[in-house]
Amino acid sequence: MADKKKRRKATNSEDEDSDGQRVQPFKKRLKQDTVILSSLRKLTESIRSDESTDKKTLTLSDLDLSSTCREVADLNLSSVQDAIERLVIRITQSILSGSGFSFDVPARGNANQLYVPQLDRIVLKDKTSLRPYANVSTVRKTTITTRILQLVHQLCLKNIHVTKRDLFYTDVKLFQDQAQSDAVLDDVSCMLGCTRSSLNVVAAEKGIVVGRIIFSDNGDMIDCTKMGMGGKAIPPNIDRVGDMQSDALFILLVEKDAAYMRLAEDRFYNRFPCIIVTAKGQPDVATRLFLKKMKTELKLPVLALVDSDPYGLKILSVYGCGSKNMSYDSANLTTPDIKWLGVRPSDLDKYKIPEQCRLPMTEQDIKTGKDMLEEDFVKKNSGWVDELTLMVKTKQKAEIQALSSFGFQYLTEVYLPLKLQQEDWL
Amino acid sequence: MADKKKRRKATNSEDEDSDGQRVQPFKKRLKQDTVILSSLRKLTESIRSDESTDKKTLTLSDLDLSSTCREVADLNLSSVQDAIERLVIRITQSILSGSGFSFDVPARGNANQLYVPQLDRIVLKDKTSLRPYANVSTVRKTTITTRILQLVHQLCLKNIHVTKRDLFYTDVKLFQDQAQSDAVLDDVSCMLGCTRSSLNVVAAEKGIVVGRIIFSDNGDMIDCTKMGMGGKAIPPNIDRVGDMQSDALFILLVEKDAAYMRLAEDRFYNRFPCIIVTAKGQPDVATRLFLKKMKTELKLPVLALVDSDPYGLKILSVYGCGSKNMSYDSANLTTPDIKWLGVRPSDLDKYKIPEQCRLPMTEQDIKTGKDMLEEDFVKKNSGWVDELTLMVKTKQKAEIQALSSFGFQYLTEVYLPLKLQQEDWL
Repeated sequence: MADKKKRRKATNSEDEDSDGQRVQPFKKRLKQDTVILSSLRKLTESIRSDESTDKKTLTLSDLDLSSTCREVADLNLSSVQDAIERLVIRITQSILSGSGFSFDVPARGNANQLYVPQLDRIVLKDKTSLRPYANVSTVRKTTITTRILQLVHQLCLKNIHVTKRDLFYTDVKLFQDQAQSDAVLDDVSCMLGCTRSSLNVVAAEKGIVVGRIIFSDNGDMIDCTKMGMGGKAIPPNIDRVGDMQSDALFILLVEKDAAYMRLAEDRFYNRFPCIIVTAKGQPDVATRLFLKKMKTELKLPVLALVDSDPYGLKILSVYGCGSKNMSYDSANLTTPDIKWLGVRPSDLDKYKIPEQCRLPMTEQDIKTGKDMLEEDFVKKNSGWVDELTLMVKTKQKAEIQALSSFGFQYLTEVYLPLKLQQEDWL
Repeated sequence: MADKKKRRKATNSEDEDSDGQRVQPFKKRLKQDTVILSSLRKLTESIRSDESTDKKTLTLSDLDLSSTCREVADLNLSSVQDAIERLVIRITQSILSGSGFSFDVPARGNANQLYVPQLDRIVLKDKTSLRPYANVSTVRKTTITTRILQLVHQLCLKNIHVTKRDLFYTDVKLFQDQAQSDAVLDDVSCMLGCTRSSLNVVAAEKGIVVGRIIFSDNGDMIDCTKMGMGGKAIPPNIDRVGDMQSDALFILLVEKDAAYMRLAEDRFYNRFPCIIVTAKGQPDVATRLFLKKMKTELKLPVLALVDSDPYGLKILSVYGCGSKNMSYDSANLTTPDIKWLGVRPSDLDKYKIPEQCRLPMTEQDIKTGKDMLEEDFVKKNSGWVDELTLMVKTKQKAEIQALSSFGFQYLTEVYLPLKLQQEDWL
């Protein structure tokens, strides 16, 4: 504690020495932590009351879309096993009755995707295509599908998890390259109506979590306030994660590793009770599932801290409304109502980020920004449209790290507290 | 426990069903775990007695190289602070005496690198170059060096860690691009004679650890047998890691994520007491420091499980003898005497890896393999030379995952136990 006080003091004196005139105006606006905490408490309560009363999570069937759209669910192992066995029996009967051997596989192309504004995510429509064995153009894919079904059935019996790469290597001769077994794996998820995690095939883990949350990972209780600076690696298999408990007021979703590290070392979660999570760049499936599970079980607001560039917003959109490739599972993978806390294009001037810490946007950046302005996911939030329009107009971007130009701890000691105090999220 | 038995049984029956004739011959060779454990115990004891008696770790001064080679040490914050202050005073005196302002910076180019066979790692020779302020070609670099010294001095006062990216952003106008501040940072390490971690500038974390080890991370005690399947993220700042305790018999260094996952889920460390660590590909500084610290404090043998390709061996060499870029710190970053457990080129035939799971080496692979044959680090181990020669001759490579062709748990239930039983490491 004495150490901490000393550290804070050192910061103050340093700020006054070298960056005083730039940092002080913002620092002076900061109120007592208790004031900031009470406004956060209001946010958390509003989210909880929303969820408990009228605004229950909409589903496809609420919107009468369940007959025209397709969705998968988390199934337990024995249900997956049953589903595979039922499918195989149906096929056997079809062969015996002389109708031959074919799968009815959901189409997953762009034409079969739909953004549903009420759900605020991309879903898969109900078009399917026939995959007959007795056809030269589909015989290979039908065989691969059958083999994947058999392998997944084995995983269910053994109750173990493997990666897509493991799956590929069990029959390289047939699959030829991993893209083929990967694609069919998604087909099988869709066909069986279950998530890919239900098939016990997981992706490599990438994300880390630290802060005010306790959960169980494969039977071990993990207390993320006691994970030092390194944090806890987010488990690849969400079905072995459970018993979530937390006294946090919000979840802080961080795009980058470096910002995560600053927050973890300063134990930001002790000053403002929160859970800090990052996928270190592009969100992977494990981190998306983990975020969703936290949001659902703990009913906490999610505030996002991303770079001020089109990709920061794109990352937000993957967490929020999903990717086209896995739209069949958007209900499980997406976390609704993520707030864009920062770094936002309007922050650059507001917080007087020096010109030399801003970067000019490339032609590609500007194109991506303009494309994003056309996305339904952005359009439904007028605040986001304004911010993105400003970015494209000024042609300037900035990383979260640009805040370091005011001192290394400016992020945790001034910028974020002030943002929270002003309830400055969109 | 009942669950575990059931799982094993399922594996057995499955093996007999589908892969029986291929797996059985190897499985039958497996002795009781107690037999395997006793041979492992011998290995651990031999390492410990080696270290405690004659073969103490050699240093540059043992070889009379300390005057011609340069090495850095882990310094605590106040020593780094002192070193910077002494340097600045020296420069001030030089200016006052009319000799001007210049730094004497160690050269870090290829010509100044040396592989020392007795140490089994790359070290930096003692050539330096003058960096005067009053010279148009060096004035910028001298200014950057001074600024970096000032920033590191601040970090010492505050006792916080930042990333290279943070450092760059504190003065973009001066540094212009990150390569410039990064390079000078290494210069500063060398000049001050301390490791980069001593400067409190860390790299992003990438590695994970699970198994029989307990350690403290920033004051929190972490028990890695209770980290579920996700494991513990290796902390970016090794100086906050301590109090290592372990009842493991060896450290299993794994190249890839997927193999790590298999080992973690099957809790391989409970059957064969070990610590499992991976950097998910190319080793990062944090993982290298962590491995070194484990090896030094726990005095355990390190067995490596990498892909059977030139890059697998290259990764081994980075852990073992270091990279040229950071040769000035090779004493802290390298872990001597890593054993190559597998997957080795000779394993492909020995374990009858199916042809379709082997991959043809590309021209580039073959060139890399031949280049590695010329490296001192490989040449000093005749077993490694034989293996690499075989690889280049057969022009075949294979990933660890290729073992999945015998069943998903072949790695943990047959391959690794058999390797350990036969003490089949080089």
